[in-house]
Amino acid sequence: MPKVTIAQNILAVNDTVAEEIQQLLAGRGIRTINIMSSPGAGKTTLLERTIERLRGQLGIGVIEGDVETTADAERIEAAGAETVQINTRGACHLEAHMIRAALSEIDLARISLLFIENIGNLVCPAAWNLGEDTRVVVVSTTEGDDKPAKYPQMFAVSQVMVVNKLDLLPYVDYNLEKVKRQALAINPHLRIFELSCRTGEGLDRWCEWLVEFADGMIPLRSFSGEEA
Amino acid sequence: MPKVTIAQNILAVNDTVAEEIQQLLAGRGIRTINIMSSPGAGKTTLLERTIERLRGQLGIGVIEGDVETTADAERIEAAGAETVQINTRGACHLEAHMIRAALSEIDLARISLLFIENIGNLVCPAAWNLGEDTRVVVVSTTEGDDKPAKYPQMFAVSQVMVVNKLDLLPYVDYNLEKVKRQALAINPHLRIFELSCRTGEGLDRWCEWLVEFADGMIPLRSFSGEEA
Repeated sequence: MPKVTIAQNILAVNDTVAEEIQQLLAGRGIRTINIMSSPGAGKTTLLERTIERLRGQLGIGVIEGDVETTADAERIEAAGAETVQINTRGACHLEAHMIRAALSEIDLARISLLFIENIGNLVCPAAWNLGEDTRVVVVSTTEGDDKPAKYPQMFAVSQVMVVNKLDLLPYVDYNLEKVKRQALAINPHLRIFELSCRTGEGLDRWCEWLVEFADGMIPLRSFSGEEA
Repeated sequence: MPKVTIAQNILAVNDTVAEEIQQLLAGRGIRTINIMSSPGAGKTTLLERTIERLRGQLGIGVIEGDVETTADAERIEAAGAETVQINTRGACHLEAHMIRAALSEIDLARISLLFIENIGNLVCPAAWNLGEDTRVVVVSTTEGDDKPAKYPQMFAVSQVMVVNKLDLLPYVDYNLEKVKRQALAINPHLRIFELSCRTGEGLDRWCEWLVEFADGMIPLRSFSGEEA
């Protein structure tokens, strides 16, 4: 099966680059979050609101992954973060070599927290290490309450789940408890935040956690599936 | 670049199988639609509502693609269509050989319209021919009004765009005209339906078009990017 062998080789090369990235960033005291979701779940808006709230408190950098356009990077830059755009021109996920190239464009001395906003895709990004310290999957109340069961790998490899668009709950058929139950059945260590980027509900708790995370107050072993 | 060469070989093999499928289905007078979207845009609900409305009028078959679970196939079967589930177990798109295998499980004599519900993913499925006569991309008003520009390939290869969740327009920042403008800039031949599976708005027009499509009243060359 040449296809499988080659895919595994590519993943192994990717893991080597990801390890280099993790060492580089750890050496500079930078914590890194790989943020993933379906298209339109609200990753960019979450980053905008987060950067606005943490400005002056944390140096934040963002690597913005999109198939096409620089629209998201422009939004993030306007919110006040160091931003680099990666356009994959058709590719469905980010890979570690893209992150390595993007890092050379960021003034690392100015940041302590780095977000990598992955391509909007609940499948492929789950397979690719980017050298991140933790992975956040964002779901939203408008995309149906069956996503963890239907896309389990994404929830298995993530350490945090954000449920966004709480403000739209009254207008949709979405069983929030079912989603949490499904996600925790796949990954009992998942930390869950419920919020609305539109109303601001829940953002305080999320930002407090980010500050603790950036400060190294959250032991990383709690993200590897072991008990903290 | 061995990676690219192999990917092209796989796509060429896929195209050969897709052509076989198209000939098989054309020979039996079955019209086939490959339906694609982000996770949670409402593909399955659209199919449920469509099958309920067209029951007794058209014989409908559905090949249901999911990474995991048979939940969607159960919903479609309950709505009253011949249904086959494909679980890709991690793969991010359907391929023609999966469709060929699924077709052997469908009583083709009983159907004149076949839907293939692809994996929820706005990137990868766009690259894979499944032997379909036409491709429908579903977007929804809750996933942001920048999707055509950010995922152009999907809109370039589709012939129809359905904008779903019209009922949620009052509660979201979504510029419907902008979405249509973006989509038509990529693909001027795109046929657009605006609807709400929840309220039923727009479903009549969509179903009328499907009946004409299944009856062969819509010339297929209008789907190849040429003028009809």
